[in-house]
Amino acid sequence: MADYIEPKLASGFKDYLPEDMIPRQEMFDRIRAVFENFGFVPLDTPGLEKDEIITGGDPDFKMNVWHASIKDDSEKMALRFDLTVPLARVVAGNPDIKKPFKRYQIGKVWRGERPQAGRYREFVQFDADIVGSTSVLADAEIIAIMNATMIALEIPNFLIRINNRKILNGLTEYAGFSPDKNSAVLRAIDKLDKQGWDKVSTELCDAKIGLTSEQAEAIKKFVDLRAHTPIETLDAVEALMIKSPTAMNGISELRELVDAIKAMGVPDEKWKIDLSIARGLGYYTGPVFETVLTDILEIGSVFSGGRYDGLVSKFSAQSVPATGASVGV
Amino acid sequence: MADYIEPKLASGFKDYLPEDMIPRQEMFDRIRAVFENFGFVPLDTPGLEKDEIITGGDPDFKMNVWHASIKDDSEKMALRFDLTVPLARVVAGNPDIKKPFKRYQIGKVWRGERPQAGRYREFVQFDADIVGSTSVLADAEIIAIMNATMIALEIPNFLIRINNRKILNGLTEYAGFSPDKNSAVLRAIDKLDKQGWDKVSTELCDAKIGLTSEQAEAIKKFVDLRAHTPIETLDAVEALMIKSPTAMNGISELRELVDAIKAMGVPDEKWKIDLSIARGLGYYTGPVFETVLTDILEIGSVFSGGRYDGLVSKFSAQSVPATGASVGV
Repeated sequence: MADYIEPKLASGFKDYLPEDMIPRQEMFDRIRAVFENFGFVPLDTPGLEKDEIITGGDPDFKMNVWHASIKDDSEKMALRFDLTVPLARVVAGNPDIKKPFKRYQIGKVWRGERPQAGRYREFVQFDADIVGSTSVLADAEIIAIMNATMIALEIPNFLIRINNRKILNGLTEYAGFSPDKNSAVLRAIDKLDKQGWDKVSTELCDAKIGLTSEQAEAIKKFVDLRAHTPIETLDAVEALMIKSPTAMNGISELRELVDAIKAMGVPDEKWKIDLSIARGLGYYTGPVFETVLTDILEIGSVFSGGRYDGLVSKFSAQSVPATGASVGV
Repeated sequence: MADYIEPKLASGFKDYLPEDMIPRQEMFDRIRAVFENFGFVPLDTPGLEKDEIITGGDPDFKMNVWHASIKDDSEKMALRFDLTVPLARVVAGNPDIKKPFKRYQIGKVWRGERPQAGRYREFVQFDADIVGSTSVLADAEIIAIMNATMIALEIPNFLIRINNRKILNGLTEYAGFSPDKNSAVLRAIDKLDKQGWDKVSTELCDAKIGLTSEQAEAIKKFVDLRAHTPIETLDAVEALMIKSPTAMNGISELRELVDAIKAMGVPDEKWKIDLSIARGLGYYTGPVFETVLTDILEIGSVFSGGRYDGLVSKFSAQSVPATGASVGV
């Protein structure tokens, strides 16, 4: 029998030996250089915060959080699962920060993923956000930084998919179903890429969501529009959703965003409007974006984000608009 | 009443806003550049490991460790309190790593310090170690890297204090007290700088340790030797401890180390033999070193380490020698 402690990591955790860490460090440096070239300044916050900050009231935030405790201390603590919630806390707690506040943060985050190949319970996140601006120019700058980062990492084949949550929120008005079904409908649509329309349609009409086949058909018409060029898509979706004021608002924002992206010089072939993109987290309120590697679509999105105008108000009486994106490495 | 979550950090934790983080990041980059110039390669290990790895069997290691848990998972986990224990685990678990293995690691560590001014429960540690060499040249290289780091940080007034644990372990033979009192005696000596001799002497002779006044007097003679130049100190301590084979072994190692430090070009005024230096952690086995800022001695040591030839064998049947130092920032 061994009289020593087995030198094993827990499953879902990973060492980076020098042969992995040297290129990884080079990648980190390149991402940081892009963020700094765009004029973002560094922020650092603890890995560990009060449980009530990290998990908040939002059910989305309670997912698989690591709790932490120490002898003789009763305060409930948790490990951060992203860098956006801590940013919102910092902005709320430091109202004098000059805005727009363009900050980047690099740090480990922890999640209670079920251990499986390629999913880690700890990884490094690079996060760039602009806080204090409602302008779509801020959203466009985030998309430009996503594009520049992929170029700096010498990844030739990628596509940034863009949508607007307001258009998705307008689906209730457009297809005529009850607003309380909206998040379930969005979660179903979000699976389109991985599962195909037939499965999504079945989910939409099953007992749990319970759309009619006419409503599902209306949604199919909607998601099919993403096959077109940005301008065509915008014109078509405007025609389709003319009766939804919420969607029209999102479409108008998206038109402005398209102009801004073009003005910033992000090449046309590197981005696309994709009306099926919803993003998982509940805090997004406007434009949402995600980057996929077009050679290996199955790994999902690698650099994603969106506008979250309500998050700071979880921690403060004032509401502060914000937009940003992060890449997990 | 507020209907939002108070945006507060737990006590002992700190945000670094951009005005703090920009110079901090610059400092991080400089330290990393020094480590890389010395040919050290990066390693990364998780912040969170199995509890048995982090806390081990050693009572020194159980101090104030943060435990972590997640719903539906029974495995006991803990946050790392240093980067040396994870290094020992990596070396034991990857026996094929080419040695000597010169690695650096940068990462956050967590400790359950009682909250008080200037003591944080989370900080960033920079750690440089050489694994697989028993040579004092490896210890000298660690001292050279400590010197180069202080220069790179443009800190003019510092002093690296050097000792050898074997000399301290020889105190039982030299002063004639029981070996089971040795760690308590070392802990008392370690307080000399902060408390002065009178308090240390009282502690040595109190009921708990129980040395005789003759034994305490012998220890005073010993610690007083640190006032001299390195060569004088070595000659004097050799004359004093001639009857302790353990100490003679340490003195001989220290003579070799002094030659190696000089050969590496670390200026004479930047280091000193100080026989009172013990270092807190139990795992050190040979040379120990710590850097103090001579303008602000009260903050204690800022960059410290030593040789720990037994640590890897906690995790493996083989024993692997190692030496290193770390700076917490």
